[in-house]
This record gives sequence, structure tokens and C-alpha cells, in this order.
Amino acid sequence: MSLRSTLDFLLYDWLQAESLNQRERFADHSRETFDAVLDTCERIAREKYAPHNRTVDTQEPHFDGEKVILPQATHDAHKAFVESGMMSAAQDYEIGGMQLPFTLQAAANSFFAMASVSIGSNMLTSGNANLLMVHGTEMQKDVFAKNEFSGRWAGTMCLSEPQAGSSLSDVATRAVPDGDDFQDDPLGPRYRLTGNKMWISSGDHELTENIVHIVLAKIPDENGKLVPGTRGISLFIVPKRMVDTEGNLTGERNDVALAGLNHKLGWRGTTNTLLNFGEGKYPVGGKAGAVGYLVGSPGKGLHCMFHMMNEARISVGTAAVMLGMAGYYASLEYAKTRPQGRPAGPAGKDSAKPQVRIIEHADVRRMLLAQKSYCEGSLALSLYCARLVDEQKTGTPQAGDDARLLLEVLTPIAKSWPSEWCLEANSLAIQIHGGYGYTRDFPVEQYWRDNRLNMIHEGTHGIQAADLLGRKVLMEAGRGMKLLAARMAETMVRAAKVPELAAHAKALGEALQRIGTATQAAWSTGDPRSALTNAVPYMQAFGHTVLAWIWLDVAARALELDAAKASAVTTGKTSAAAYFFNYELPKIGAWLNVVESRDPTCTDMPEEAF
Amino acid sequence: MSLRSTLDFLLYDWLQAESLNQRERFADHSRETFDAVLDTCERIAREKYAPHNRTVDTQEPHFDGEKVILPQATHDAHKAFVESGMMSAAQDYEIGGMQLPFTLQAAANSFFAMASVSIGSNMLTSGNANLLMVHGTEMQKDVFAKNEFSGRWAGTMCLSEPQAGSSLSDVATRAVPDGDDFQDDPLGPRYRLTGNKMWISSGDHELTENIVHIVLAKIPDENGKLVPGTRGISLFIVPKRMVDTEGNLTGERNDVALAGLNHKLGWRGTTNTLLNFGEGKYPVGGKAGAVGYLVGSPGKGLHCMFHMMNEARISVGTAAVMLGMAGYYASLEYAKTRPQGRPAGPAGKDSAKPQVRIIEHADVRRMLLAQKSYCEGSLALSLYCARLVDEQKTGTPQAGDDARLLLEVLTPIAKSWPSEWCLEANSLAIQIHGGYGYTRDFPVEQYWRDNRLNMIHEGTHGIQAADLLGRKVLMEAGRGMKLLAARMAETMVRAAKVPELAAHAKALGEALQRIGTATQAAWSTGDPRSALTNAVPYMQAFGHTVLAWIWLDVAARALELDAAKASAVTTGKTSAAAYFFNYELPKIGAWLNVVESRDPTCTDMPEEAF
Repeated sequence: MSLRSTLDFLLYDWLQAESLNQRERFADHSRETFDAVLDTCERIAREKYAPHNRTVDTQEPHFDGEKVILPQATHDAHKAFVESGMMSAAQDYEIGGMQLPFTLQAAANSFFAMASVSIGSNMLTSGNANLLMVHGTEMQKDVFAKNEFSGRWAGTMCLSEPQAGSSLSDVATRAVPDGDDFQDDPLGPRYRLTGNKMWISSGDHELTENIVHIVLAKIPDENGKLVPGTRGISLFIVPKRMVDTEGNLTGERNDVALAGLNHKLGWRGTTNTLLNFGEGKYPVGGKAGAVGYLVGSPGKGLHCMFHMMNEARISVGTAAVMLGMAGYYASLEYAKTRPQGRPAGPAGKDSAKPQVRIIEHADVRRMLLAQKSYCEGSLALSLYCARLVDEQKTGTPQAGDDARLLLEVLTPIAKSWPSEWCLEANSLAIQIHGGYGYTRDFPVEQYWRDNRLNMIHEGTHGIQAADLLGRKVLMEAGRGMKLLAARMAETMVRAAKVPELAAHAKALGEALQRIGTATQAAWSTGDPRSALTNAVPYMQAFGHTVLAWIWLDVAARALELDAAKASAVTTGKTSAAAYFFNYELPKIGAWLNVVESRDPTCTDMPEEAF
Repeated sequence: MSLRSTLDFLLYDWLQAESLNQRERFADHSRETFDAVLDTCERIAREKYAPHNRTVDTQEPHFDGEKVILPQATHDAHKAFVESGMMSAAQDYEIGGMQLPFTLQAAANSFFAMASVSIGSNMLTSGNANLLMVHGTEMQKDVFAKNEFSGRWAGTMCLSEPQAGSSLSDVATRAVPDGDDFQDDPLGPRYRLTGNKMWISSGDHELTENIVHIVLAKIPDENGKLVPGTRGISLFIVPKRMVDTEGNLTGERNDVALAGLNHKLGWRGTTNTLLNFGEGKYPVGGKAGAVGYLVGSPGKGLHCMFHMMNEARISVGTAAVMLGMAGYYASLEYAKTRPQGRPAGPAGKDSAKPQVRIIEHADVRRMLLAQKSYCEGSLALSLYCARLVDEQKTGTPQAGDDARLLLEVLTPIAKSWPSEWCLEANSLAIQIHGGYGYTRDFPVEQYWRDNRLNMIHEGTHGIQAADLLGRKVLMEAGRGMKLLAARMAETMVRAAKVPELAAHAKALGEALQRIGTATQAAWSTGDPRSALTNAVPYMQAFGHTVLAWIWLDVAARALELDAAKASAVTTGKTSAAAYFFNYELPKIGAWLNVVESRDPTCTDMPEEAF
């Protein structure tokens, strides 16, 4: 199955994306316009991304003392992406967008992620601009967001700091009002920022004439102290180069200096930087301090930032999925063409016979089907979540609100599950290649290295798990969890009528019930410390249950359309579903044991015994 | 717990290695001589290996057109290792060895593997020489083995070929008698070899003045045809440079040419080569064809080769273990020193309080304890297997034979289990480091890359699994399996009396019973194809059961010595055992489900449905 035919099935047959054009916002769209977008992205990814994936791995970004140098291929890929209009595809017509459903945008972007996940970092630019469209002033939208959507400028998100990592309450970057007239700047209340930001992707480069940093910082109180906790955090636009109200560069650098490039295990096409704000290297108006324009209200920065978090986390999940798919296709191709060995048993004893292709070996098939079930399954989940984003934005109030809440619950899974299991898929892709997979002559080792990032950035695995068990399954009196259970129940009812799926439907029901029991048991003491002790095993079990549901739903749909299993598409879906139910779902028992017992083995161990 | 104190516990308190000096072969040894060896190896590893582990990763071997160039550090490490006498530590005094038990040699070598797994490849040299000591003529031992043990020459194993990979029956390298007097060469019956060998570690370098290749090749029959299958395989010594019967270089190159270096994901300190034998680049006596001296009888090559396979596979397992340990120690140190965030729950809400060290977070502790249980547990298994090697060589006939058979069953686990789970440990070590772990400024990403090799070389995961379920648990009417079950039963009986371990003992009994049921169910049709369909999940479950047993035994011993759990050593062992029984052992259910049902989902899937 090619990626395109997999997407076609999931988008049109399963999610019925075509029906979105019955909504006013998408009324100009049709299957034809959707297909045209997919065609274009598939072509650009094939021509401008895929051939250079190894190039960006070997020619890492470097700093020549003045500029960050990237391979020409990265410039070309950026240009092609910008020209495609995908940066603002989901935006309103009036600011140059196509009003494309997010579902389609997500599907289209998957081609780029599969071809070269690190050559582009457009998600950050569009995410940054999307945030400004919601929280920025009209002037900020005009000057900053529109120039990002057009691809003229790029964007970043500057959250982490060296001393704080994921702990945003410990952000120490300071923002002080810039002069008595600081409130009067047409670009927004003007501050001067000082501090260091770590892990800033695309924090410096020459792909665009300017970079728009969105920076979390704290405004000191009247005593000059930073407010502890996340309440004190505000959000600022800090351009790399100063601009006027027309969006022209003034010719002056802002006081943002590259302090270092991070040299990574993978994902090397994207610069990752340590930035110093306000160290005085590039004084503005003769004065040290990076000029920043406040977005939204002081102290509400994290609230604004979280606006872009769900989409960013789904995008990270999709990146993990597509790296998994890339490895799946590479190893499938290899398995179909590489002759080696003979079948087990008497039939294989005759070594005078030619060797068979390795796809004929049971264990290679197992590794292929595992990959297919991990990657196609989580691609389906990813698109399902994208479809919820569209529902949230364009559905009826009730449907929109349900979608919002379902997204809250599913986002930690959409982010964490592919990060873990599509990484495992990449390891299986290496394994199928044998020694060749361990060499840099084949692409699979790079996919594996690239994919290892996804359990770390945009909230680590541990943070996703604490979010899921500590917040998402509880919020609004557990209504999100109930909504999800109701969706699963709908699927189970449909599947229970299909002989091939009835046993799976029953197994899903049991898994769901056990998740419910485990959730209650975890929280039975009411103490977050003991409830969250085994949050990661909980998330793993929850994720496997969600994926089992997705596979059941996908397989049920395939059989509705093709009860005779006449097509390979249908057999592929039912086999991958069977794999998931037989080989994967039973794993949840081990994970939930420790959740239910609030197993304290790890927390109780004295430090000196490690 | 430092590695040294962990080894001390396992060697002396658990395996009672000191008692080996009651055997004649080891009579000169004592705890003092054992400790001296450990001290020396620990020091060399610290001084000559560890500081250069990153160097050998970044300065990959390269070919200047004439020679393979390695960093100076690799030469220095080689020299220090040779001078330590460890190359022949387990050999007889009369050939310059120390008659050290293999158990101690394995423990001592673990320091090197942890410090830099790829800077040395001494295991190949000593394995090669060990093979010649068993199967070679006196002259072959004198000329080749002794010069390898002394470190003057190095050794390789040349099995794989580009067209055959793991399928040794398809070896196509030809060996034809070299002249009418070919039988009369004092170095052994002389042949000329032609063929290509792939994945040859240390296949070319300048660390030593010569390289002794041990090569699998086929002698054509009277019609000039190669015998199909493994029956036709013979074994040859093929030196890189020609030598005389005194072990002097004659000055002539043998016809072995470097055809390429493999550029790998990790393990970069060791050259890995494609070698062309007999292509005529270095004609010997004016004639193309690599000169090779037959070892043992024609057609018995694989039998000779398998002699070194068990030890080599245990060594691969140990390498995987020690990479895991390296990551464990690095992440433990990081977790103890890195402040970030605050505890979950009300106690952590006060962000005016300083951040805590991340070892105080439940999920970080879980990731540390998982690593400890994977790595210390498999280190114990590794040393247990090494102890069996000693038993096989120096025990009573009955004990020796039992040890031999237990080794047959345990070797696939000792090789595969750490390859999979200590790799997972390395991933957890990265995760604990967060973004830093993803950079090349910290060592953990390299451990993870290096470790990925271990599921591939010396027989892939799939091959180990087929060996275990297809051969080892069946051989000699299942006696190996029964011996293992009896050992486990002994442990269970002891542990059942200890309140803290009684539940674990029961769980192990159930797991063992389930392994037995699954083994029977897999083979119930008698058809190897269906029995072996899920050989890898079988091996995973088998491995987890073995590790649970090892942990139970280790914990029982720790409590025998320190019932009050007064020491951190004891608490560490009982906690790691509890982790393994609570979090890991329950995973076997999911794996065994598919084994018992001989689940055909993967084999039945039509190829076009992938």
C-alpha cells in the first residue's frame, strides 16, 4: 500500500473528509481540490525533500562566526514549501490562506515529514503565526503573522531555559518596560528582555530575512523580583531584526545572539540553538536588552502558549508516525527484493534450491506487520485528531465542545504513542535489513535516530503521562474520558455484528473497563504522588487501548465497504487489526497491574541503593 | 553501586567464584589474584579506554588507499590490553596464559566493554586463537594461535558473504588445492581461496603486524561444483601477510584485499570490512588466489566454527549489558545532580522553593530502576553463563555435562536478552537526560547507537529465537530445559521461605509452567513452520522468565547474607527484583498467547496487503 492510497482510505473512506465541504468555511472545497493539494505536496516532497534527507544529516548546520550555514537543499525545500501555499493553507482567504480543513493540511504535511522530517521547520512558523492570529493585536497580525504565513519570515517558540528545562515555572528571563513610553509602541507594549533560551529550533538561520521569536519571560514586580510559578509568565514577540509598522526591516539587529548550536543524535537538518537575549552584543538604540512586544495580557503568557500546544503535539506525533512509515516502506521494499535463506522445516532443507526473498520468513513478516500496525494505526489516530480540530472549529456548538474535550484526552496519546511505538517500528526496520540496516548506506538508521527526539520535545513522555492521568482523564468531572468511552462503545457495537471482529470488540470492551478500574484505583487515595507514580505505564496501556479502538474502527469500516475482502486494502486493514489485538493489546495487563496497585517499588527505593 | 561493588557481590557472594581455586587448574589463584586482575583491568579501562570512547566514534576508520587508519588512542588501548596479558588470561600457563577462570576473565573484560565497546576487538582475536587451540595442528597453534595470544597478530572470523548473509549454506567462497604438494605444507593442507566476505570486523588495520583470518569456504567436488548446504563448508587460516613456520613474516602479502569499509550507525571504533579473497591484487608466488591452510577436516568447518560461537554469543550479550550499565551510571549521575521541577501534588506547588534533583521524581526513579533491573540482571546472567563455561571445563563429568547442556539453552538468552533490553535501558538513559541526552555532548546517545548492533551480529534476534525454540529446548529429549527448570525450582524452594520473596517464587513457578505449556503448544502440530512462527515472542517470554529467576536467586542470596537489609546493596537487589517481578514478568502473558495459539496472522497475510 502506498502512502497515498493509505491516506485516501483514511481520509475519504474512513473519516469521510469530503463531507467537510458541506460546511460554510470549506464550501469551495471538494475531493478534487483536496486531491490537488495532496498531489502538490506529494510531488514537492518527492522532488525537494526526499533526495536531500541524507544531505541534511551529514551537512549539519554550522556557524561561520556571523551566520548559520545550511545546505542549499534546505533553502530549496523551504522555497518550494512556501510557494505551495501550505504555510497558511488552513488560514482564512482574506489573509492569503486556502481555508483548507486542518485534516487535509495534516494529511498533506505527512508527505514532507516522511520525505525529510528535519529539512523543514514550517510547523513552528505556522504555529507561531497561528498563535498571533488568536492573541495578537491587529498590528501584530499584520506585521508578524502575515509575514510568517507568506514565508518571508520564520518563527520560533522560546520556552526552555538551561536551568529550567521543562519546568516553566522556573523561567528566569526578565522583561522590563522599555522607557516611559513603552505602552505606546504601535507593535505592542515594548519591553527589554534579558535571559538565555535553550533548545530553540530554527533559532538562527538565513532561510528567511527575519525570524520572529515568541518568548516566555517574566515581568518583575515592583520590588524587581520575578513572580515564582507560571502565573508570572508573559509572552513577547522578539524579532531577530528590528522592523517598522509596515513590516520593513529597519536595518538594525535586535539584541538576540546565537550562543551555540546543539549537535544532535538526529533531526540534524533543523538548527537547534541556545540564544542569549539582551546580553548587549547587538544593542538597539545604543542600549543592551532584546526588544520584545507584549502579546496579550501580562502574566497570561502560558495560557496563550498553550493555545498552540495541542496542534504542536499532534504534529510531533505525526512526525513520529511518518518516520515510522518511512522505515516501514524501506524495509518492506527490502524484504520483497532481498533473497536470503530458506523456509523453516523440511521444505527449506534443500539448499540446492534458490534462496527465498526474506518476506517469506515468518519473523520478517511479523516485523513488517508490527510496523504496519504501529504506523498506519497511529496515522489514523493522528488524522482522527486533526478531524477533531476541524470539528472544534466548524462543528455545531455541542459537537465542537465534544471535539475540544476529546482532543484534550487524546492529545497526550497522539503525541506519546507514535513517539514510542513508531520508534520501535524503526528499530524493526533496521532489524529486517540485518547488517545493512546498521550502515549509513541505507536510510533506516537515520529514521531511528531522527525519531528518538519525539519522546523528548514538546513535553517529554513523563510530562504527557502526568498530563493524561493527572489532568485529562479527570477534567470536567471525567467528561472527556466518558466521551471517549462512548465513541469506543459505538465502534464496539458496529464491530460486534461482524463475525471477524466480534472477538476484538469484546477484547476492547474489557480493556476499556480495565482502564476505568485502573484510573479509579490510581486515584483511590486522592494523593497525586501515589496516583502518578506509574503514570507512564498508565499512558502506555491507555495508548494501546486507543490504538486498538482505532484499528477496530478502521477494520470495521473496511469490511463495511468490502465485506468479501476482495481488495488487498481490506485484508491489510483486518490483518493489521488482528495483529494489534492478538500481539499488542494483551500487553496492557502488565502495565495496569502496577497502576492499580500504585506500586511503590520505585519511589520507595533509597537513593543510595540505585 | 559502582560496577566494581556490583561485580564483587555477583562474583564472590553470589557465584562463590573464590571456591574455584579448589580446582586443580585454578589452584594458584585466590581472591587476591582475582582482585588484582580486576584492579588492573579497571585501571586500564579507566585510563586508556573511557577517555577515548567519543574519539573513536568521531574519528572513524578510513582507508588512505594503502592502509586503514585508526586513531592513536586505539593503538594505545590495544597496547595496554596486550600488556595486561588478558588476551590469553584463561589459557594454560605453558602457552603464556594465567589459567584464570573464564568467570573472572568475563568479569574483568566487562570494564573494557563499559569504557569503550568498540575501541578494542580483542574478543575476536582470542576467540580465533581459542578455536585453533582446539582444532588446529601443533604447528598451527604455535605459529598462529600463540602469536595472537601474545597480541603480535590479530584475528578475525570470516563467515558472511554479500549474497548469503546469515545463510551459511549459501557460502560461495571456493577453496581449491594449491598445487600437487598441497597436502605437504607444514602450516596445513594449502588451498587457494577466492570469494568475498562481508561484515568482517577488524578485517584490516595496522594495529598488529599481521591479521589471521579464519575463513569459511567450500572445496569443490570432482566436477568443480560446490556442495550445497552447510556440509560442504571447510575452515581455513588465511593470514593477511604470508608467514613461515617460525612465525616470521616472509615479506609477501597474501591475496586478501580490502574492498570497502562499512560506515556504521555506531560501534565505529572497530573497522568493519568487505574483503576480497583471491581477486589477484596481491598474487602470491606470482599467482592469484588467497593462500589458506585447512583447519580440521574438509567439510567440518561449521562444526569447528560453532566451537567458538557460544563464547562469542555470551560476549556479545556482555557487551550489550555493559553498554546498558554505562548508560545507567551516566543517567544515575545526571539524575542525582540535575535540579529540575518539583514533586507532584501540593508539596510541589510552591514554586518559590528551589527545584529538586530529578532523581526525586517518580518517573525518573522508574526509569533508573528499570535500567538497573535490566542491566544488573543480565550481567548476573552473563556471569552465570561464564561460570557454566568453567564448570563445563573443570567440573566433574556429570556437572560438566549439565553445564554444557544448560549453556546450550541459556546462550540464546544471554545473547538476545541484553541486546534488546539493555538497548531499551540506553533509551531510558537518554530520556532521563531530556534534550541533553539527544546531544552528542553527553555519552548516552552513543551507547544507544553502539548497542543497536547487538541484536544483529553473531546471529540476529530471529536466528537466536529459532535456535532456542527450534533446537535448544528440544535437544537431548528436552533435558536442557529440564535441567534449567530444576535450577529454577531450587531457587524457588529457597525463596519461598523468605517472606519478602515468597510471592515472587510463586510467580516464577507459574511463569515456568506457562513456558512449558507454550513450548508444547507450539510443537503440538509437529510442523516447524507453525511452531516457529512466533519464535521471537517465545524467546522474549523465555528470556523474561530466565531473568526473573536470576533476580530471585540474586535477591535470595542477598537476603541470606543480610536478612535485616542493613546495606544498600541488599535493598538494591531486593528492589530491582521487585521491579522485575512487578513490572516485567507479567509481560510474558502477551508474548505467550500468540505462541500457544500458533497465531498465523503474520504468515497468512497476502504479500500485496502489506
